Amino acid sequence: MKKANKKSNAAIIIIIGNEILSGRTQDVNVVSISKWLNDLGVKLEEVRVIPDTEKIIIKVIREVRKNFKYVFTTGGIGPTHDDITSQSIAKAFKLKYCYQPEAYKLLENYYKKGKFNAGRKKMAKMPKNASLIYNPSSAAPGFYVKNVYCLPGVPSILKSMLGGLNNKIFGGDKILSKTLNLRTVESEISAPLEKVQNKFKSVEIGSYPFFKFGKIGVSIVIRSTDKKKIDYCNKEIVSFLKKKKINIIKNK
Amino acid sequence: MKKANKKSNAAIIIIIGNEILSGRTQDVNVVSISKWLNDLGVKLEEVRVIPDTEKIIIKVIREVRKNFKYVFTTGGIGPTHDDITSQSIAKAFKLKYCYQPEAYKLLENYYKKGKFNAGRKKMAKMPKNASLIYNPSSAAPGFYVKNVYCLPGVPSILKSMLGGLNNKIFGGDKILSKTLNLRTVESEISAPLEKVQNKFKSVEIGSYPFFKFGKIGVSIVIRSTDKKKIDYCNKEIVSFLKKKKINIIKNK
Repeated sequence: MKKANKKSNAAIIIIIGNEILSGRTQDVNVVSISKWLNDLGVKLEEVRVIPDTEKIIIKVIREVRKNFKYVFTTGGIGPTHDDITSQSIAKAFKLKYCYQPEAYKLLENYYKKGKFNAGRKKMAKMPKNASLIYNPSSAAPGFYVKNVYCLPGVPSILKSMLGGLNNKIFGGDKILSKTLNLRTVESEISAPLEKVQNKFKSVEIGSYPFFKFGKIGVSIVIRSTDKKKIDYCNKEIVSFLKKKKINIIKNK
Repeated sequence: MKKANKKSNAAIIIIIGNEILSGRTQDVNVVSISKWLNDLGVKLEEVRVIPDTEKIIIKVIREVRKNFKYVFTTGGIGPTHDDITSQSIAKAFKLKYCYQPEAYKLLENYYKKGKFNAGRKKMAKMPKNASLIYNPSSAAPGFYVKNVYCLPGVPSILKSMLGGLNNKIFGGDKILSKTLNLRTVESEISAPLEKVQNKFKSVEIGSYPFFKFGKIGVSIVIRSTDKKKIDYCNKEIVSFLKKKKINIIKNK
């Protein structure tokens, strides 16, 4: 969709899972991956949630891997019939779907003798020549093929695996942010805030209403890789807030 | 992406918001909309999260409204500069972006005299001839144009507005589900579960590991609009679980 230059630091997450689409499961992996990407200087530009349907997975992967530098998938690499990510990625890349020798050995060593059954063996099947993403929580690894990184759906396991990818993902400067929490409503600040945004076009300024402990307020979030620009924006915002006598609860 | 026939009961949600992509905000609206759609017999087939960028919003809306019967957007209809959903939808449909008279009146009546400022007036600007989605929480309405329904991003307000759309959304039979929570691991049940799935191809059977109170387990979820088929599947699953002496914690 987004015609991002592959050389830019753009990423997309493809969440593969009927359980997210049915409303049964609340996704929390986007927040984990996104925060990790911010630190690596990679910008998450899109997320898609798609069903456990081979045809759809293949089509989406073929499309997005051309347009984004990094594609992350979550879910569908477990032992059951509805885990079809690995075989679908193999087909998307026109690669054989077969045992990855290192993954096979890792899993064989992890399970007790006689307990390495067919379901568990399935977790060692990957696109031919896939590289592993190690799993310090429960052995079963993720994998990557070219720019497509396949992670599990279980949030705690996914989180534990991200660090292992740090030296594989090459981003730009860390994406920094500053948040001002205000005791006001959005319509009170919309005009002066727009002026600041127009002055600093390369900085991303967002305004988000919140309701906490029965009180309403607004968070202004300033995002950029350039700390100086964030500080300039912050100064201008604080200045118009003072003039309008709007109370800043927090500025961090 | 999904070449769903528009006549089928397929829906897509487009989440518009940098704050979701940056990892700052955890989306919870997908779960609310999806559960509501299940009851109306409409299947959520895809979700996309995209940034507050006019060009992208226009492109995505033009693409997906052809392929899905219902398109729901969340976010970006507030009073600040980063709220650009309404104007982008107007452009996507090549409609004028102007005051919607009913919305203007609603908001004018809601705010005290002298408090209906420019920011608040902006919330009455919509694509020409848009129909309103009423807001019982805080007056500012959503709107729809053809098959594109635009809702706010604030979860409690969004939730309060869905009911008002019940007589606008025409789905099929209610999507039913049954969940079996088991004290086992997925690899123990993957082979017999796959057999049941192959026998009942039209039923969606999912298997999801969980970790609760320090114990691991698996949830099997059976989904269909046909209660009889769910019951058949359930019977076969319960039967193989008995043979394998696997403990069912809950079957609801």
